Amino acid sequence: MDPDAVAKAFVDHYYRTFDGNRVALGGLYQDASMLTFEGVKIQGAAAIVAKLTSLPFQQCVHAISTVDCQPSGPAGGVLVFVSGSLQLAGESHTLKFSQMFHLMPTPQGSFYVLNDVFRLNYA
Amino acid sequence: MDPDAVAKAFVDHYYRTFDGNRVALGGLYQDASMLTFEGVKIQGAAAIVAKLTSLPFQQCVHAISTVDCQPSGPAGGVLVFVSGSLQLAGESHTLKFSQMFHLMPTPQGSFYVLNDVFRLNYA
Repeated sequence: MDPDAVAKAFVDHYYRTFDGNRVALGGLYQDASMLTFEGVKIQGAAAIVAKLTSLPFQQCVHAISTVDCQPSGPAGGVLVFVSGSLQLAGESHTLKFSQMFHLMPTPQGSFYVLNDVFRLNYA
Repeated sequence: MDPDAVAKAFVDHYYRTFDGNRVALGGLYQDASMLTFEGVKIQGAAAIVAKLTSLPFQQCVHAISTVDCQPSGPAGGVLVFVSGSLQLAGESHTLKFSQMFHLMPTPQGSFYVLNDVFRLNYA
């Protein structure tokens, strides 16, 4: 398992899905998954997707600036730390953000998101 | 174990130690610990402290804006996600940063830093 390859593939897939078909992000979370979005804690795939699909913008484009990753311990997890910017439809300026994911392996040889923390970086 | 209490106590201790006596941060890391500092990966307590104490500024003051935390899985770990700003001695402006820590429990009932990722947030 190459953490860098896992992180790169995940980040590409996650933000492409977010920008193109947000409801499909549900397949990346499980019941134990947690999202902290701008300080609000949400648990479980269904509640997380409900939150992500109810954000007050329909279209957006993420641009990724940095991706850092590390193995998270003997259970085979991968920590992914992302910085980038977010362009909302109809807005001229972009929003900077930082986000971290804790990916855990599934029995099928894939990964799911156990932990997800998102924060806008206010200037 | 209350992850919020662990995170708050850790963040207070970490940045107070960083700003006051940086070399003492070594006690928070172990041989398996990893730091990714602005994209550079470093492993092990000794190498991490060598990096942190060789940064090109002697005095700094961290101001914390947000602290988010989540339990990281059945092993009792805690993920801590921090945003804030950094004031260097002799500089008039501050630097925004984001940082994440993965804290793991020790047999003595304390926590050490297994994973640490630091990034400046460039405007």
